[in-house]
Amino acid sequence: MRTSEIVEKVLKHIEAEEVSEIGKILTELHPADIVAIIEALPPQYRVEAFHTLPTDIAADVIVELADEPLDTILTHIDPKEISGLARKMSSDEAADIIAGLPPEDRAEVLSALPLEESSKVKELLKFPENSAGGIMDTKFTSIFKGMTVTKAVDLLRESAPEPDELYYVYVVDSDSKPTGYVTLPDLLLASPEQSIESISREFPDVVRLEDDQEKVASVINKYDLLGVPVVDDLGIMKGVVRIDDAIDVMEEEATEDILRMGGADATESVFTPTGRSVAKRLPWLYINLVTAILAAGIVGLFTKTISAVVTIVVFMPVVANMGGNAGTQTLAVTIRGLALGELTLRNTWSFVLKEAAVGVLKGLAVGFVTAAVAFLWDGNIVLGLVIGLSLVINLFVGSLVGVMIPVTLRRMKLDPALASGVFVTTITDAVGFFSILGLATVFLRYLK
Amino acid sequence: MRTSEIVEKVLKHIEAEEVSEIGKILTELHPADIVAIIEALPPQYRVEAFHTLPTDIAADVIVELADEPLDTILTHIDPKEISGLARKMSSDEAADIIAGLPPEDRAEVLSALPLEESSKVKELLKFPENSAGGIMDTKFTSIFKGMTVTKAVDLLRESAPEPDELYYVYVVDSDSKPTGYVTLPDLLLASPEQSIESISREFPDVVRLEDDQEKVASVINKYDLLGVPVVDDLGIMKGVVRIDDAIDVMEEEATEDILRMGGADATESVFTPTGRSVAKRLPWLYINLVTAILAAGIVGLFTKTISAVVTIVVFMPVVANMGGNAGTQTLAVTIRGLALGELTLRNTWSFVLKEAAVGVLKGLAVGFVTAAVAFLWDGNIVLGLVIGLSLVINLFVGSLVGVMIPVTLRRMKLDPALASGVFVTTITDAVGFFSILGLATVFLRYLK
Repeated sequence: MRTSEIVEKVLKHIEAEEVSEIGKILTELHPADIVAIIEALPPQYRVEAFHTLPTDIAADVIVELADEPLDTILTHIDPKEISGLARKMSSDEAADIIAGLPPEDRAEVLSALPLEESSKVKELLKFPENSAGGIMDTKFTSIFKGMTVTKAVDLLRESAPEPDELYYVYVVDSDSKPTGYVTLPDLLLASPEQSIESISREFPDVVRLEDDQEKVASVINKYDLLGVPVVDDLGIMKGVVRIDDAIDVMEEEATEDILRMGGADATESVFTPTGRSVAKRLPWLYINLVTAILAAGIVGLFTKTISAVVTIVVFMPVVANMGGNAGTQTLAVTIRGLALGELTLRNTWSFVLKEAAVGVLKGLAVGFVTAAVAFLWDGNIVLGLVIGLSLVINLFVGSLVGVMIPVTLRRMKLDPALASGVFVTTITDAVGFFSILGLATVFLRYLK
Repeated sequence: MRTSEIVEKVLKHIEAEEVSEIGKILTELHPADIVAIIEALPPQYRVEAFHTLPTDIAADVIVELADEPLDTILTHIDPKEISGLARKMSSDEAADIIAGLPPEDRAEVLSALPLEESSKVKELLKFPENSAGGIMDTKFTSIFKGMTVTKAVDLLRESAPEPDELYYVYVVDSDSKPTGYVTLPDLLLASPEQSIESISREFPDVVRLEDDQEKVASVINKYDLLGVPVVDDLGIMKGVVRIDDAIDVMEEEATEDILRMGGADATESVFTPTGRSVAKRLPWLYINLVTAILAAGIVGLFTKTISAVVTIVVFMPVVANMGGNAGTQTLAVTIRGLALGELTLRNTWSFVLKEAAVGVLKGLAVGFVTAAVAFLWDGNIVLGLVIGLSLVINLFVGSLVGVMIPVTLRRMKLDPALASGVFVTTITDAVGFFSILGLATVFLRYLK
């Protein structure tokens, strides 16, 4: 059955107040499918549907919900219930949920947890949400490097960990510093008396508690690992970040890049309610309004030229628009190159030169065609030349700022996608208006 | 040592023609780091550096290279050498590399492979690059559901598979149809005489050979799986797609969305040479030129109004630009919502209504401020009203098309990001020009 059909069924039962029926439908599904159903429900019904779930399933569901549906549900269930859910979660999941609560509820939820669990969660809450410490799981399986294979296998059998705690078995020394990992196949295929040290594999890179989550995800992705150990300043192992967390980070970062490049707030989603959407987008629009008025101010300098040659107004937006689009092309390639680590300190300079050349060539190609169109429109060859030349200038500048702005933002340790679309189009608007109107003013006597 | 320092070292050795030194430096690194070094080298040195690698490392490196550096290297090594590398790869990796060769080389490379391997690769080459069949690995570990745990473990020991072939052990029935999976912890912790069937876990979803790679990645991601079986029309298991392949797909899809939203070609990267970049971008710019000229044509209808009220020209680009930016905000949220599966058939209609409301509210907020600025600039209250009203209209339309265009593209089974930025800004340019100049024409006598 498709999600939308299940949603219709659930809605019918909600309207008929047949709560137990909803529970029956939902609990038969995979938690990931329940998440999809709850997110697809109108906001006012999400809490009711969520409440039909047994605690263990509810815990699996709530940790996977998107921000907005999660907020709605958290504000409608009481702290005791949240503690009940948190008991069924790993400590990093519990910390994520508790971090989203108002401070007064946090204390109440924490105090209702078992002491060991609540101190673990408190420890995790100290790390920034986007750091390795903020996303790591403190539950992992480790063995001492001096053990034999038999001893290690016996230990694993005793502790009976969850499968996802066994992607890797982490090997540590006597100071609890990670020295490598073994996989279960390694253990299964080794001879019983071999030492763990002799079959252990090295980690190609280490992750520290304070490292940015983006770095953690890129280490896992680059080296095709299923997990990496997270260490503190002394090199002691504090937790692990696993591949499924890395995937979530990569999705989050791609979302941020797309939203920021589009001049929207990085935290918005389809589920954001109207008022909050407006509030999140207006600051960017106001910034953009200021820059747009500044660019338009340039037009104000040339009202005499405009009165004399009104046709120029027709081509003014073409020049501005084409420069903006050419710049945005470069911007997209640059932002993605930075995100994937393909654009490094080493090759930035040659990439800038390349984009400058690409800009001129695009400008010549577009300028020639537009000049011809302008000549056909107006019959004035000089008008064609003015428009063609201003396109070359603007497409060159567009390409150049399309690469310079994100690269500069990255050097300043800011997100390269941060409103860079707005910066690029403002500059190409300004340069576009200035070059076409400036050139028209210079050649005014041939245009009238 | 940082990548850039190693690159400098390698460059020195290349200039001094000390080839063996380069090999020494590179072979000490992780293959993923060698990839980064080769990509960071200027194009003309990449082949030389690659040739210093022993075959087994070279095979690991070449499968991870980005498109352009890969092309350069493939065109500079002979088919025999490629066959040698392909022998060291899994069949899906070999198929990926061979798919990138010109047809005449393909046959030569295939004929130099062992018969079994070449027929596997030929089979894979039949599937589209972006389908489950095109990205699956045909090498996987499967056991019969009727076996005991002891028998299964013995079998695994004998076949001694690579760790990544053991993320899951796939359970099949007597027709080779997948019925579920077991993990190594399951095997390790089960009692020896239990049947595999009794400890087997179910897959929440099945993937078919012809399914789009995006669907495959989203199944793996949604259900937090380490792999999924790929079946043919009869339900027989043909291969697996693993989580690391899913990550590559997700990165590729995010790249495509960002590039397409920016009006660039989905296959471009930082490594694309100048000429090819221009060739890839020009078609989009020419499409955009046509739409920009059409939008500008609207300006041509109002030359009388413009001659009468030149000030209107100053605010014309502001109205067009703000509508474009507001539309792009909505576009970014919509494209990401579609990519993450948050925007479904069920909630699309309410999202469209919400965006329409957001558009009007953004228009009122921006329109009011701009009207005030225009009034202060010119001292004419009607000019302010004309500009304010045209902003409300244009931001409403921008929001509406920002959601309608990607949603419609998706309904037509096209990529929602496909040049949608260009469509949105064209429409907001046209509507912006028409509304400000049209309103100015209507109220002309109050503006002069």
